[in-house]
Amino acid sequence: MVNLEDLRNEVAQFAVDRDWDQFHSVRNLVLAMMGEVGEVAEILQWTDDDKVAELLNDGGRERLAEELADVLIYLIRVADRSGVNLEQAVRDKLASNDQKYPKDKSRGSAKKYTELDN
Amino acid sequence: MVNLEDLRNEVAQFAVDRDWDQFHSVRNLVLAMMGEVGEVAEILQWTDDDKVAELLNDGGRERLAEELADVLIYLIRVADRSGVNLEQAVRDKLASNDQKYPKDKSRGSAKKYTELDN
Amino acid sequence: MVNLEDLRNEVAQFAVDRDWDQFHSVRNLVLAMMGEVGEVAEILQWTDDDKVAELLNDGGRERLAEELADVLIYLIRVADRSGVNLEQAVRDKLASNDQKYPKDKSRGSAKKYTELDN
Amino acid sequence: MVNLEDLRNEVAQFAVDRDWDQFHSVRNLVLAMMGEVGEVAEILQWTDDDKVAELLNDGGRERLAEELADVLIYLIRVADRSGVNLEQAVRDKLASNDQKYPKDKSRGSAKKYTELDN
Repeated sequence: MVNLEDLRNEVAQFAVDRDWDQFHSVRNLVLAMMGEVGEVAEILQWTDDDKVAELLNDGGRERLAEELADVLIYLIRVADRSGVNLEQAVRDKLASNDQKYPKDKSRGSAKKYTELDN
Repeated sequence: MVNLEDLRNEVAQFAVDRDWDQFHSVRNLVLAMMGEVGEVAEILQWTDDDKVAELLNDGGRERLAEELADVLIYLIRVADRSGVNLEQAVRDKLASNDQKYPKDKSRGSAKKYTELDN
Repeated sequence: MVNLEDLRNEVAQFAVDRDWDQFHSVRNLVLAMMGEVGEVAEILQWTDDDKVAELLNDGGRERLAEELADVLIYLIRVADRSGVNLEQAVRDKLASNDQKYPKDKSRGSAKKYTELDN
Repeated sequence: MVNLEDLRNEVAQFAVDRDWDQFHSVRNLVLAMMGEVGEVAEILQWTDDDKVAELLNDGGRERLAEELADVLIYLIRVADRSGVNLEQAVRDKLASNDQKYPKDKSRGSAKKYTELDN
């Protein structure tokens, strides 16, 4: 099991060991995260929706795994360096989403909660 | 403690309960993740590096926490729907980074591993 | 006809008139551009490839036009504030692409130029 | 002078000559644009605001020019393939911004128009 707090510590130690905190400002890390999201997009850019499964089975899954891991590492680091408790934030967001999107009203609908009938 | 596997299950159940798997194709989720990264960027866009701490203390941390949680939720979902084991991927990436960036050679340097002296 | 140099001037004057150059550092503008790209992605996130035409005809084209204009405005501004001649850059890139992707070798192929047979 | 309509035609012809329209769906192009924005971010990610000028003078301007040109090319192509008149869209947006941000109220302020005093 990999928990977010252990990951946060491990990624923080990695930076400390290399004296990288000086580079890891919040905005630097957000730009780095954008770079990795761009690499995720690049993997999928020429593959129509109905060809994605084929791409994944043809080596794409491994490449995607690497880039998703990079996004996660920078995301954890952005949170850490900005004093955000990511564990708490995701707990709060899931609880909030549960309220914003009641099962009966949002079933089978891609509408934003602000557009759901009430 | 929040572990990635529990989060993956919780987020998946959330979608199943609302019959949302039909919307959660890999590319749809990547676009949604891009939207949330855009919101992270928007929070920080007019705040110079040396003003970020002030922004965070002035309500920015809470707003950032929400958007980072959204990025994480979509990231977990992209991995799940593409068959990527995110726990394993992040373990592998951290091990790989440890090899690519030896402590002595990368200390205090923002160089990419391909540019480190050998 | 709208040319890039006129747009550059107009967008620059807009900032000068409001004393906004102080906010328009290169990195600030890149983050702002990312925010707008995120809004483009958000419009398209739940619409499968084969439903995009329907979305566009159902009001999506107007919303997309607004966000694409925002991306263009920030893009022009990033170039201007970083001393990049965007007109020259796009001319150079198109010439370079023409060499990297010869018509006969790249016809009907989504391969990157580094992967084309030679 | 480079005008947007000529660029649109040139980029469209480039795709036709290579039988690339089949790959240039709106969503594919948005993902490709994101990939290029990610490369812009990557150039600037470890360079604090006050070091950007130095980076640009040290070869960064040329690298940035290339990536900004790529963003522009995909942006023009997204507009073209979605039936958006980018020239008109940017004209409309500049006129709209002029109304949303009156010079006297927005001078020296980075506030969003919805937060300006009225």
